Amino acid sequence: MAKVLVIGCGGVASVAIRKCCMRDDVFTELCIASRTLSKCDALKAKLEGRTKTKITTAQVDADKTDEVIALIKRVQPDLVMNIALPYQDLAIMDACLACGVNNLDTANYAPENTDDPVWREKYEKRCKQEGFSAYFDYTWQWAYGDKYKKAGLTALLGSGFDPGVTQVFCAYAQKHLFDTIETIDILDCNGGDHGYPFATNFNPEINLREVSAPGSYWENGRWVEVPAMSIHRTYNFDGVGEKDMYLLHHEEIESLAKNIKGVKRIRFFMTFGQSYLTHMKCLENVGMLSTTPVEFEGKEIVPIQFLKALLPDPASLGPRTVGKTNIGCIFTGVKDGKRKTAYIYNVCDHQECYREVESQAISYTTGVPAMIGAMMLVTGKWNKKGVYTPEEFDPDPFMEELNKNGLPWKVVESPELVD
Amino acid sequence: MAKVLVIGCGGVASVAIRKCCMRDDVFTELCIASRTLSKCDALKAKLEGRTKTKITTAQVDADKTDEVIALIKRVQPDLVMNIALPYQDLAIMDACLACGVNNLDTANYAPENTDDPVWREKYEKRCKQEGFSAYFDYTWQWAYGDKYKKAGLTALLGSGFDPGVTQVFCAYAQKHLFDTIETIDILDCNGGDHGYPFATNFNPEINLREVSAPGSYWENGRWVEVPAMSIHRTYNFDGVGEKDMYLLHHEEIESLAKNIKGVKRIRFFMTFGQSYLTHMKCLENVGMLSTTPVEFEGKEIVPIQFLKALLPDPASLGPRTVGKTNIGCIFTGVKDGKRKTAYIYNVCDHQECYREVESQAISYTTGVPAMIGAMMLVTGKWNKKGVYTPEEFDPDPFMEELNKNGLPWKVVESPELVD
Repeated sequence: MAKVLVIGCGGVASVAIRKCCMRDDVFTELCIASRTLSKCDALKAKLEGRTKTKITTAQVDADKTDEVIALIKRVQPDLVMNIALPYQDLAIMDACLACGVNNLDTANYAPENTDDPVWREKYEKRCKQEGFSAYFDYTWQWAYGDKYKKAGLTALLGSGFDPGVTQVFCAYAQKHLFDTIETIDILDCNGGDHGYPFATNFNPEINLREVSAPGSYWENGRWVEVPAMSIHRTYNFDGVGEKDMYLLHHEEIESLAKNIKGVKRIRFFMTFGQSYLTHMKCLENVGMLSTTPVEFEGKEIVPIQFLKALLPDPASLGPRTVGKTNIGCIFTGVKDGKRKTAYIYNVCDHQECYREVESQAISYTTGVPAMIGAMMLVTGKWNKKGVYTPEEFDPDPFMEELNKNGLPWKVVESPELVD
Repeated sequence: MAKVLVIGCGGVASVAIRKCCMRDDVFTELCIASRTLSKCDALKAKLEGRTKTKITTAQVDADKTDEVIALIKRVQPDLVMNIALPYQDLAIMDACLACGVNNLDTANYAPENTDDPVWREKYEKRCKQEGFSAYFDYTWQWAYGDKYKKAGLTALLGSGFDPGVTQVFCAYAQKHLFDTIETIDILDCNGGDHGYPFATNFNPEINLREVSAPGSYWENGRWVEVPAMSIHRTYNFDGVGEKDMYLLHHEEIESLAKNIKGVKRIRFFMTFGQSYLTHMKCLENVGMLSTTPVEFEGKEIVPIQFLKALLPDPASLGPRTVGKTNIGCIFTGVKDGKRKTAYIYNVCDHQECYREVESQAISYTTGVPAMIGAMMLVTGKWNKKGVYTPEEFDPDPFMEELNKNGLPWKVVESPELVD
């Protein structure tokens, strides 16, 4: 039925590709492209014989629009799934626009070099205007809206779990559960245990940015910014138990604030264990999280890169991580004139994910929605022309596929609220 | 009156040298020798004009007995003060024996390479025999006892504060306060604050060994070994306040067990702040305290050495450290048929030390007793021939000089005991 070009072959991409191959009724041809061809070939070798999807591979440097254009022209896909690095979002969008192909990604564009003065100026202007200071946001990609519309193309932004499924949950709540949604709390809980005193699921530099950036939330039509990790709550998560969580800025707050009409407050909380936070703090205190090179024995060494070399390889965590994730949204609002509350969430088990696709739940919960987003686009179930986030489409077919493809969700009425 | 050769020009040596120069009635000539001649010359330049002591300097590699012998022959000192590294104790003792010169040091011999199989074999045999596993102990230096006696020479081992003054306190308690000492608790409290979240007063590798080595104490004629940091107490220290302290192995327990007749239990406690311990633990967990080289960007890097490069230079802590140290011994026992308890201790202020000798109290409390030990030997007040620890001499003249030279002590009857 559809031919898809996947750019990227890391943890999340591998899950998305494996899940596409399980749905060979929809994804009849896949081209897997990344900087490292051997990774693509290895994955292809694992999958062939277990799927009817016809798989090809290609080498591409996705930083280079020209290379991506050439690849698209050769492959002639119906859709480009960008599961590479967020740094490459714009180069890939340019290429898709040039070739007239729909595309999706799983995370907001962020510049690779946040010290670049051109970026810095734009960023600081936006922080001043908008009132929040996350280095990632939608402005860069929303700027493509008119061009995509004119070209009759669709770009689906952020089709992972959060952002992604969380926004589909909001659209579902808006469509079926509420006349007016007043507050949304997005809760991202990882109850997984890898058995190491300290390890990070991905690049420690990105982990650090998360915990050291100011938090922010949307309230009464404006952003409220608070010091990093200054708003702390505990919550008793289904399938996981009681966990500490902290308010963070998160990208989907920005689009939900525009698209959920009448919403008064949107917050995002993520769980962090005390041990994780203590290690981050101690490492920061001694300078080990610094990105500024230090002269050591005649060589320039970037402390956080040396730390990365000492820590367990994130890829090695998969087989040893046990426990579950629980990600979802708590809503308060009004239905048929009555106040009500509801909680939509998914619980995902690290070991079950690993048995199914050789990745733990962190990659699984992002990779599956990427596949489903692709399915929505190639089947034409989502077909608005322009640049959109997931809550701007009909949630029902997406919600149905979540249940069918390993991410079943629950709706709980009158849940425990976050104060 | 006396000519002394000082080997070493680091933090402790600088204090000892400055204090010798304040006692130019005793120390009429000093030769300062170290690996780095410029350090000796710089200290000489600071002191000249402010003392009658005649100062010369020399370069020496104290690892090499021959170089030390040549230096002693040239300088012709009455005493060698070894305030270099503990690794060099034996080379210097050999040189002094060859030249017929008395000597003292401030810390037990420890091999530089604890992986050396010759050392390893001896060490493991001793641990098995004795029942404790500190990598430093007196056996190596006690083995010189007969040779020193025959040569009519004296070696004073460990004339710092702990070991050193703590043993003099014990001898004083034995001479004046008790007929029988039953228990000794040595309490080493550093209540100093340098204002950094984490920094070490000396080499972090040595700090690490301290907190990661098994603790041990002497009880009823044998060693009791316990897991690292497993015995924790709090104590309310005069001049400092309440502090957490942990039982450690410490070298003077070994000599006191032999020399304080009838003693039933000897323990050593050192204070550590929770923040210090948390940082050490986190750094250990991620591998930053490892001494095993790691391959990084084509170069072998020893994690703890890279950490050392990131941490504040210990020498920079002096001017910014505030607060006090409190080091002393609590005794229980019998006098005139009655049970009694007593506590002898010194309180030392980091800032006052810095104003006097440009070093904080950690170096001060070790350097002053080194000077006093030297005074005991060159004045003949301590003159037994052989290899001895401080408690084996008459404590009274040493105690008198502590009061005169910046380390006044108190005796408190019926103190708070450690349970």
